[in-house]
Amino acid sequence: MSEKSPIVMHLSRDGHHHSGDFGDSPSLLDYINTATPFTLPAPCGGKGRCGKCRVVVVEGEFSPVTDGERRHLSPQDLARGLRLACLVRPTAGPARVELEGERAGVGNKASLIEEKFAILPPFRKTLLTLPQPGLQDQASDQSRILRQLGEDAPGMPLAVLRKLAGALRKNGFSATLCHSRDRVIAVEAGDTRDSLYGVAVDIGTTTVAAYLMNMTRGENLDVLSALNAQGAFGGDVISRIHYAMTRPEGLRLLGVKILDQIDSMITALARRNGIDPERIYGVSLAANTTMLHLALGLPPENIAAAPFISVTTEAQRVPSRELGLSIAPGALVQVLPSISGYVGADIVAAVLAGGMDQAESPCLLIDIGTNGEIVLGDRSGMVACSTAAGPAFEGAHVRNGVGGVAGAVNGVFPGKGRPAFTTIADAPPLGLCGSGIVDLLALLLRAGIVDETGRMLSRDEAASAGIPDDYLRGMTEAEGEPAFVLVPEEESAVGAPIMMTQKDVREIQLAKAAIAAGIDTLIGHAGITPGEIGTLRLAGGFGSYIRRESAAAIGLIPGELLHRVEVMGNAAGRGAIMALLSENMWKRCDEIRRAVRYIELSSSPEFQDAYIDRMFFPKENTKTDNKL
Amino acid sequence: MSEKSPIVMHLSRDGHHHSGDFGDSPSLLDYINTATPFTLPAPCGGKGRCGKCRVVVVEGEFSPVTDGERRHLSPQDLARGLRLACLVRPTAGPARVELEGERAGVGNKASLIEEKFAILPPFRKTLLTLPQPGLQDQASDQSRILRQLGEDAPGMPLAVLRKLAGALRKNGFSATLCHSRDRVIAVEAGDTRDSLYGVAVDIGTTTVAAYLMNMTRGENLDVLSALNAQGAFGGDVISRIHYAMTRPEGLRLLGVKILDQIDSMITALARRNGIDPERIYGVSLAANTTMLHLALGLPPENIAAAPFISVTTEAQRVPSRELGLSIAPGALVQVLPSISGYVGADIVAAVLAGGMDQAESPCLLIDIGTNGEIVLGDRSGMVACSTAAGPAFEGAHVRNGVGGVAGAVNGVFPGKGRPAFTTIADAPPLGLCGSGIVDLLALLLRAGIVDETGRMLSRDEAASAGIPDDYLRGMTEAEGEPAFVLVPEEESAVGAPIMMTQKDVREIQLAKAAIAAGIDTLIGHAGITPGEIGTLRLAGGFGSYIRRESAAAIGLIPGELLHRVEVMGNAAGRGAIMALLSENMWKRCDEIRRAVRYIELSSSPEFQDAYIDRMFFPKENTKTDNKL
Repeated sequence: MSEKSPIVMHLSRDGHHHSGDFGDSPSLLDYINTATPFTLPAPCGGKGRCGKCRVVVVEGEFSPVTDGERRHLSPQDLARGLRLACLVRPTAGPARVELEGERAGVGNKASLIEEKFAILPPFRKTLLTLPQPGLQDQASDQSRILRQLGEDAPGMPLAVLRKLAGALRKNGFSATLCHSRDRVIAVEAGDTRDSLYGVAVDIGTTTVAAYLMNMTRGENLDVLSALNAQGAFGGDVISRIHYAMTRPEGLRLLGVKILDQIDSMITALARRNGIDPERIYGVSLAANTTMLHLALGLPPENIAAAPFISVTTEAQRVPSRELGLSIAPGALVQVLPSISGYVGADIVAAVLAGGMDQAESPCLLIDIGTNGEIVLGDRSGMVACSTAAGPAFEGAHVRNGVGGVAGAVNGVFPGKGRPAFTTIADAPPLGLCGSGIVDLLALLLRAGIVDETGRMLSRDEAASAGIPDDYLRGMTEAEGEPAFVLVPEEESAVGAPIMMTQKDVREIQLAKAAIAAGIDTLIGHAGITPGEIGTLRLAGGFGSYIRRESAAAIGLIPGELLHRVEVMGNAAGRGAIMALLSENMWKRCDEIRRAVRYIELSSSPEFQDAYIDRMFFPKENTKTDNKL
Repeated sequence: MSEKSPIVMHLSRDGHHHSGDFGDSPSLLDYINTATPFTLPAPCGGKGRCGKCRVVVVEGEFSPVTDGERRHLSPQDLARGLRLACLVRPTAGPARVELEGERAGVGNKASLIEEKFAILPPFRKTLLTLPQPGLQDQASDQSRILRQLGEDAPGMPLAVLRKLAGALRKNGFSATLCHSRDRVIAVEAGDTRDSLYGVAVDIGTTTVAAYLMNMTRGENLDVLSALNAQGAFGGDVISRIHYAMTRPEGLRLLGVKILDQIDSMITALARRNGIDPERIYGVSLAANTTMLHLALGLPPENIAAAPFISVTTEAQRVPSRELGLSIAPGALVQVLPSISGYVGADIVAAVLAGGMDQAESPCLLIDIGTNGEIVLGDRSGMVACSTAAGPAFEGAHVRNGVGGVAGAVNGVFPGKGRPAFTTIADAPPLGLCGSGIVDLLALLLRAGIVDETGRMLSRDEAASAGIPDDYLRGMTEAEGEPAFVLVPEEESAVGAPIMMTQKDVREIQLAKAAIAAGIDTLIGHAGITPGEIGTLRLAGGFGSYIRRESAAAIGLIPGELLHRVEVMGNAAGRGAIMALLSENMWKRCDEIRRAVRYIELSSSPEFQDAYIDRMFFPKENTKTDNKL
């Protein structure tokens, strides 16, 4: 009987509260992410592997602590009520659970670089002053407009027609029409010609960025970034595809999550800039292929398995109402084209932003995010590939890895004595983000603590090899293997030391080998030498914050290109902005799609060879005489 | 306390049951029509005037019987538990109420006449046999199709893309594309080229008809008609506009009602003909202007008051998904154009169906439904008007008036002795539908019981005027005025005599005067004489069943055109079918819209004069010597 009674759940986070019936959800994580307004991150897809979905149970009875939780939570954690939401469910209520506040949005992804091109929006405004209707002139509202505009006037979507009567009558039949060549986007009372706005959106697997643009002046008014609300359903594209295809309504649910999030971001951008969201007449959307599929409700399952086929790689124009965006009634969402299942519209946007398709000499573009996408070429043609680099550089699958949030260690330096570090927003350290991981590994390589093959010395081996005391002090063991503590427990914000383990090194080693081998393969296909590459462009949040010396030190990028590196910031966002602001740029996206030849690495023997070669760390950067 | 407890309602009709909380609905009618799957007719808009929303209360406590109910219900009715749903609400529950079965659908509106024109559907099918994807050919599903179709292939709406991956893989990348010039409507696994269906819909204020068409052969496979589900919200366009504009969510609710009904009708048609509803690739829609506004969610308020402006009179193509129709994912609903706020797409369709726009000599088209619309002209041009005839000819505002349902008296004849009558489906008589009303009035005029001015003799006057006994026997009083009983109580299916009252005669007199005056006004505008009119076409259900002699006898149609009458059946439905089957016919609708000049009668002095003239009944048809 007591088993069958409903269990009332009370959740709170940052002062927000939600109550409901737990029902028969398989886990607290599942309940929170599907039945409440809150979301919890679960990069491992809720399998108890990543330990990121921590909650504090405050009241009620819960299922017993599992071994999985003991792997991620210390006895002190458990004593404080910490549990992993994916491994726990309430057994008797009422149950009360607290969620930690979201630490998102501290802007690793929101940077924007100005680019010179002619502003040429796909829509414009026309002021209409129409004669008032009367018994002698009974033309319908739409006919009255068409009579003025002429025969080949653009058509009016139903959503525009629904608001037409009100708009015309509010200001005595003086109204402003916003329209493209073939479609009326809005009809507004009075003269609103000075308001013309649009939003460019870049959906990253981890982070979503939205840019509010003044479409007349091409000016970026504001930007907003946030963790992708789908993060709760898996940290990487494969987990999300798995969720979409195996859960009932999974695809619909993921679509709703991201579209609701984009709608909220657009509304927030408009509101805080004093703009009516209905004055936003267009949205451009860049993202990797899977994120686009999920946002558009296209089944992504065939992307997940060979031969990795997406439903579409073409550019799309979708009525914003169909995607539930509360902007101008007839607005279109312009979805940028993709190249393949793993080289998406975000890469097309980055190629556009960098002008690679018009470059005189070969450029190499690397975007290391959850996957590593690489493009090589110039105006004469381009080749691209995607490497299954894994999300190690985004902090996943790394013991103390975190995303680019406040408190993430984003830089590590030799320092005096012990290695020194910096954190994002100078907050107390809570883990290592990508640039911190690369810096720390480069340092361990230079110190000789990690050798060319990726093996980490034990403390005893290090002592006998003459590693200085300041480094020896950091050497410990984790999971029965050597590890190096960067931040001791007493300085850490998470109540435990922040370290890099032997296993972490292996993860990074695999990831960097994949990217380096991808570069080698493209160079081979392009028939050039590394020396012929004029520029190495690093795109994405990781590319912006990584120290190029460290990247070269671990062999992630070719050493000979170290001084030809250009950091692009959020190139995908920038390309999306360009496609929004200019019809010519929008058309160029499609030209780029056609100009880039995709190289499938999974069936490439060259890649296999290069992958094994690149597994080792560069010799010149590893210390063999064991002195710093 | 007892006032505040929820009142549980149990409703039943035809073996279907619904239970729910009555909440704070203002009346039982409002509750039934907004919170349950049932609908009750309420031609007066729920104001207690028409007495049509009868229900039987079986259990529970209800508000006291009102004077309004006593006007419509006899003491015997009240003793049986009969109440008017608009004037009663439960006061304590549980309450149990029975609704009478719907008597709809006995086909006054469903007739169809074959017309000769070239079948030229706006979409066609193409069989695709695509190469299978592999690691050497990773083109996306959409690219794979475009590669085969070529550069200027039609675009794919999101709804089609969402089903693309499944459709291509179900039959080894052999698939059939259904597409128009610029839009893919569906992609289906295998070879489905022999399935090409469409549906034409005519939304009448009272009745909705849907025609399932084989689009390849132009063959009508099936037809379905039903009472308009919006009937619950008022019997005429003005009541519905009032509901839409004064109730919160009124417009949305009316839209949902009719779109749900159309969707159900289409699904039912498909199912009972063994057709997958997704194999329906197009819908054409004709209706009066208000019904179109309500179906499309366009605010109709400016149609209701001078100068009677509609949001649009243009043809529209609306994605079927936007209207919630579960047909082929990319299908469009083609909405026929209208002429004005009161001369709708149904009239454009009727002009097309009759070929008036290509006629050599003037035609007169009359569609008497809830309003009376009239068009006069030929290939050289047309004029049209709408008369506020009121719904008298549809049985409303007439004491024993009913719609064209089984049991409606649809013909009255002199007979031997007492007047004889026929009923629809030979069912026991339950009231007079339009053709019965006109027949009976014509008979009373010929008998001298009603004089040229519309005055009905009292029984005493009739006796002294020498009216034969068989007619005298029918003469009685109602509401203090003379009345004529056609069906005595003992033969009637409603437990009361079926009669025509003095007040009924006045209603019909006003209605027929409006139509006759409308005809006069158009003839004046066209600058012709009645003798030049080659054909008089009667459209609509009433026009199909009316006896032309009776119509001429009461002065509804010009006597000199009696032998030039052609009955069109549901001309609007037929025109909608033609527009569905042929792109040329669809284009002609727009030509008709432009060719017809609308004459506003409310500001026409000619109409005012003619209206007064036509108030009298034709002299030649009234008996002055009081003999039959």
